[in-house]
Amino acid sequence: MKVYGFLQSGNCYKIKLLSSLLGLNVEWNEVDMMAGYTKTSEFLEKNPNGKIPLLELDDGRFLSESNAIINYLAAGSSLLPSDTYALAKVQQWQFFEQYSHEPFIAVNRFIQKFAGMPKEREEEYAKNQPGGYKALDVMELQLSETNFIAGSEFTTADVSLYAYTHVAHEGGFVLDEYPGIESWLARVESQENFVGMNA
Amino acid sequence: MKVYGFLQSGNCYKIKLLSSLLGLNVEWNEVDMMAGYTKTSEFLEKNPNGKIPLLELDDGRFLSESNAIINYLAAGSSLLPSDTYALAKVQQWQFFEQYSHEPFIAVNRFIQKFAGMPKEREEEYAKNQPGGYKALDVMELQLSETNFIAGSEFTTADVSLYAYTHVAHEGGFVLDEYPGIESWLARVESQENFVGMNA
Repeated sequence: MKVYGFLQSGNCYKIKLLSSLLGLNVEWNEVDMMAGYTKTSEFLEKNPNGKIPLLELDDGRFLSESNAIINYLAAGSSLLPSDTYALAKVQQWQFFEQYSHEPFIAVNRFIQKFAGMPKEREEEYAKNQPGGYKALDVMELQLSETNFIAGSEFTTADVSLYAYTHVAHEGGFVLDEYPGIESWLARVESQENFVGMNA
Repeated sequence: MKVYGFLQSGNCYKIKLLSSLLGLNVEWNEVDMMAGYTKTSEFLEKNPNGKIPLLELDDGRFLSESNAIINYLAAGSSLLPSDTYALAKVQQWQFFEQYSHEPFIAVNRFIQKFAGMPKEREEEYAKNQPGGYKALDVMELQLSETNFIAGSEFTTADVSLYAYTHVAHEGGFVLDEYPGIESWLARVESQENFVGMNA
């Protein structure tokens, strides 16, 4: 299997982390997103939505959307519960991640770290701050009650939310007042075969 | 089971449609979202993210996020494939729906239909148009190749994407040049026990 990704993207890093945790052999194809490769016709033939990460199976089939990819790769492993409700809770947190967390925290990290905080995005950056902190508040409440985000077990939902939460400071978010999140970050990092974004 | 929802919300309608398709007995609790009920402490105790739809199980447990809810309700039915890759494709399209479709198409429908197109949101509305049409382009490409969005079978991904696509015109999106989408909408509507948003 092959993944098209950009390692500094949290969405792409999810695949790297999950593969390491499960000892999967996934070939990494680093893509120059900044140079616009994901908008080329060559890439759009693989993923018409023009986004990475993208997984290519050995038989040439493709799968996009980071959370769908990690759930696919984790099928049958301990990272996905077999109980129907517990599995739905994993998905609940993954949809939360994509709708209520990533658009604020990942986008502000992009504006600050990669786009160099341009004047014309300052208003957007400021507007994203309350949304990001709201997402962190919701996570903190959960993590004050359970060890992992979807309950007592470490699941793909933790991989999904770890990806951008652990670099939230790169988007200007301060985690000092989130002890539940900080302990949880350490718990994720203590998992066997954990690998960091910059490793 | 009980759902807290607002019937004119596409995200909430997904639960109504799925329940009807599968003949499930889910009690509907219509919530006055416009009056701010989802921000009350009473509701935030049920869902700290303050969003509907929200499913309450008979034993008092909760599940949020529309796509997680319909996948939970459809577990074991023909609307969720058992093949791992096919199931991942369903999730791929559901994450696409929440990240690349809903934030443009549902938001513009909200601005136009519910918020009454206020002056201060005109710029946002205009900016959302290309994103919405891009999502429709991606769907059209898929639906020119397969009968349903995740392949040859009708799945929960069709329920997810039908919800806001069939009312895209209420957000100013014109579907005339999307024959694949128009045929697919009719195919969804011809499913046994289909129920409309306003029924």
